[in-house]
Amino acid sequence: MTRPLVTLLTDFGVRDPSAAICRGVIFRIAPGAEVLDLTHEVRKFAIRDGALMLWSALPYLPVGFHVAVVDPGVGTSRRPIAVRMGRGDILVGPDNGLLLGPADRLGGVDVAIELVAPEYRLPVVSTSFHGRDIFAPAAAHLAAGVPLEALGPWLDPATLVPSPLPAPRSIAGGLATEIVYVDTFGNVKLSALATDLVAAFGPPGPGAVFDIGPAGGDGDGMRRLPWAATFGEVGPGQPLLYEDSYGRVCLGVNQGNAAERLGLVTGMELELRPV
Amino acid sequence: MTRPLVTLLTDFGVRDPSAAICRGVIFRIAPGAEVLDLTHEVRKFAIRDGALMLWSALPYLPVGFHVAVVDPGVGTSRRPIAVRMGRGDILVGPDNGLLLGPADRLGGVDVAIELVAPEYRLPVVSTSFHGRDIFAPAAAHLAAGVPLEALGPWLDPATLVPSPLPAPRSIAGGLATEIVYVDTFGNVKLSALATDLVAAFGPPGPGAVFDIGPAGGDGDGMRRLPWAATFGEVGPGQPLLYEDSYGRVCLGVNQGNAAERLGLVTGMELELRPV
Amino acid sequence: MTRPLVTLLTDFGVRDPSAAICRGVIFRIAPGAEVLDLTHEVRKFAIRDGALMLWSALPYLPVGFHVAVVDPGVGTSRRPIAVRMGRGDILVGPDNGLLLGPADRLGGVDVAIELVAPEYRLPVVSTSFHGRDIFAPAAAHLAAGVPLEALGPWLDPATLVPSPLPAPRSIAGGLATEIVYVDTFGNVKLSALATDLVAAFGPPGPGAVFDIGPAGGDGDGMRRLPWAATFGEVGPGQPLLYEDSYGRVCLGVNQGNAAERLGLVTGMELELRPV
Repeated sequence: MTRPLVTLLTDFGVRDPSAAICRGVIFRIAPGAEVLDLTHEVRKFAIRDGALMLWSALPYLPVGFHVAVVDPGVGTSRRPIAVRMGRGDILVGPDNGLLLGPADRLGGVDVAIELVAPEYRLPVVSTSFHGRDIFAPAAAHLAAGVPLEALGPWLDPATLVPSPLPAPRSIAGGLATEIVYVDTFGNVKLSALATDLVAAFGPPGPGAVFDIGPAGGDGDGMRRLPWAATFGEVGPGQPLLYEDSYGRVCLGVNQGNAAERLGLVTGMELELRPV
Repeated sequence: MTRPLVTLLTDFGVRDPSAAICRGVIFRIAPGAEVLDLTHEVRKFAIRDGALMLWSALPYLPVGFHVAVVDPGVGTSRRPIAVRMGRGDILVGPDNGLLLGPADRLGGVDVAIELVAPEYRLPVVSTSFHGRDIFAPAAAHLAAGVPLEALGPWLDPATLVPSPLPAPRSIAGGLATEIVYVDTFGNVKLSALATDLVAAFGPPGPGAVFDIGPAGGDGDGMRRLPWAATFGEVGPGQPLLYEDSYGRVCLGVNQGNAAERLGLVTGMELELRPV
Repeated sequence: MTRPLVTLLTDFGVRDPSAAICRGVIFRIAPGAEVLDLTHEVRKFAIRDGALMLWSALPYLPVGFHVAVVDPGVGTSRRPIAVRMGRGDILVGPDNGLLLGPADRLGGVDVAIELVAPEYRLPVVSTSFHGRDIFAPAAAHLAAGVPLEALGPWLDPATLVPSPLPAPRSIAGGLATEIVYVDTFGNVKLSALATDLVAAFGPPGPGAVFDIGPAGGDGDGMRRLPWAATFGEVGPGQPLLYEDSYGRVCLGVNQGNAAERLGLVTGMELELRPV
């Protein structure tokens, strides 16, 4: 029989031992589980970055128990929750939108509960490390076979804080779309998916070209970029628009760093117009 | 039967493959062991940082075999050792104080040995990578069932280099306490535990306030900070004193970086006085 | 029976979830495999850095299935390959020299194939993430018992892009040798192995001293450094030449950062002359 999978995504950083402590807590409770670190280098307190990474990663993983902790509200009244998705995954973490990021890729929210049962927490619950004291133990007990409903009362999914991932907006002759993430290669990921682009403008053909620049500007910062199927279609150091391996519209530079080269940062809103 | 647990804590960094090589050596010798990386980003040569991380992490982990390597004296006469704690854990690494950091949280030192038996080292022992050649193999053989006494002769625990973790000092009307670590969130950890604070001043009540600043100064750099049970008790960006999730007195900033905000670095001695 | 070993080495970075996604893909296909991350912090697009890390690490690991992805040519016509070494390891990745870095330490290239069989790729193959779509699935299927020849047609090993690791050159009275890597401690690794040094000058005796500096210069930047068996033979902060734990000639500084102290960076060619 396959071992159950538990994944961890946090903003704890790889220097501090916090993430390893969560793994240790899981190993104590569910020694037969396979534990996979998605990342512990989410930008501090950046709920949306974490939501996007879950959206990217979880569809490629087996159905599992996924702990996610980017939690600026730890110790306040924000609820600790577990959410079961249509595909069967259970996500565990704070009720701040983080867990709902990947919902549309996992079959949507099926049921949600509030994690309150003391027998599935550590004996002492601190005010600042719920990853260790509440979330990791919950996922481990679930992986060890405890039924979801044992961990706390049902919550109405409509009361959960919604996903922080924004959608692109139609504007006259184009799309307005926010930069949602810059990856470690400097590739710039937009809120628009390739399907959004196709819905707005039809499928980009060979040689398609777009103007892209700051939304609502006077057009001075616009750049004309080719739509390319591979980085290799443009020369080294040249920029391009492309669909990344998750189906998202991105700006890249062949063998270079697009964010640095084009002066782009997370949170900027851009306009995208076919030429 | 549960797999034995082997943990690794080093200053090797995540970029170089050194830590992974240690894991590979362990897997070769003890393929049934569960191996857990506590961290490989201990500040280079910072024995005390490593000792503090072991102090924080090990109590939350099952009894196991713990390799710790922060080893500026590798290749000199410093002894390679293994230490068994009262709880049953065996810690493996250099005799430079690192392994004794968590002793008081694991039931104290039970017995110690010097790692000299050649059959439990790699065939060739380098002068600069004892993690790979001596420590990882020792822990792996122990995890595979070799008895501790087979690895070398007993050492008198009184001859071991003591823990580098300092204690706070009583001063007139307060405590002098050193900054022992700044975590990746910028939270500033002091040598004083909450129990030290209670022993000195009694339990801090609701609304308790402290003056804190450079020890032995003229009082000009003192700040008045609230003692708070949770970060959320102060506004975003506001500083506070709190007991962290390990029982240690810390300075934090709600959703911010206290070390940067307050200009504090590891090694500074502070005075703490109730108002 | 021992679990098969799958290792991963990439330039994906520890912040993005890309490496974890590869692990998840492997776990789905070969849940019984042990997966070991060698590093995901290879400098972006630095094929030679990756080749050197494989050269260093693989000899200390059991025979296994090794995925390596530093792949500036992803999406172009560069071939996806698997290479079996004399020792029995199978390396999987792009045909750009990366996989051949460790060949001489693993018994040389035995056979090579091109990874084209669609049933051993993910159903959709992107143009920018072959680690996830081609290489991780290939290694996982191999670890699960699929024979190498099922994944694609044989390639003539003589057609593979050769290893990027340079050899030192003999010059009048010395060796010219390139800096191939600076590790996280700041130790400076040369293309020359200790065996190259011995072949050129004979074994360095006690008290041996070398002049080292920029190759082809006027001699002004030369430094006189002792050859030492351990860092502790020189004082803290003092530079030395030594054989590292892999048999490579290096420049170090006892408890310090040699690259910063001596102003050295990867890619510089140095001259080394016995005094």
